Amino acid sequence: MEKDFEFIELFELYKGLLTDKQRETFSSHYLYDLSLAEIAEQDGTARQSVHDAIRKVKVKLSEYESILRLKEKFDRISKIADSLSDNSTGDELKEIIGR
Amino acid sequence: MEKDFEFIELFELYKGLLTDKQRETFSSHYLYDLSLAEIAEQDGTARQSVHDAIRKVKVKLSEYESILRLKEKFDRISKIADSLSDNSTGDELKEIIGR
Repeated sequence: MEKDFEFIELFELYKGLLTDKQRETFSSHYLYDLSLAEIAEQDGTARQSVHDAIRKVKVKLSEYESILRLKEKFDRISKIADSLSDNSTGDELKEIIGR
Repeated sequence: MEKDFEFIELFELYKGLLTDKQRETFSSHYLYDLSLAEIAEQDGTARQSVHDAIRKVKVKLSEYESILRLKEKFDRISKIADSLSDNSTGDELKEIIGR
């Protein structure tokens, strides 16, 4: 579950680098809570294909994070934002990183 | 020239998303200052091919920036870092964004 939450975070950061289809399949399962079987039925494909497609998206997301490290960087910036005594600057930092 | 400098900045941010060959060609021209003719000779190809390859890399870099907006975000974070009265926090922010 925690692992899923991490992939949802990575998805928010890197979804622009995915294809429309990859975005759609990932969202259906992780954001709109459709089961693999439901997505398969909707797409007229096999459950196993949906499973493979989602696994491929997760590999992509992990690759992007290993290259760009945005989650790691934004986590660190978010902590700094929280530690600032000046709230408005902290808020501005968080707005920039979308937190 | 200023335009070139902007592409060098984008290259530093997104080079991990390029292929080895794209990185090599872009670096040869923009970081090691080789002419298109020199790169062409080195690669045993035509000057025009090198020109096209570099243009393609620039299009890719612009696409990545239009999707992820890291230069825009990091420019804003850098300004905030400069404005902080606490230098060590500013330095930490800059270290995170690689400035």
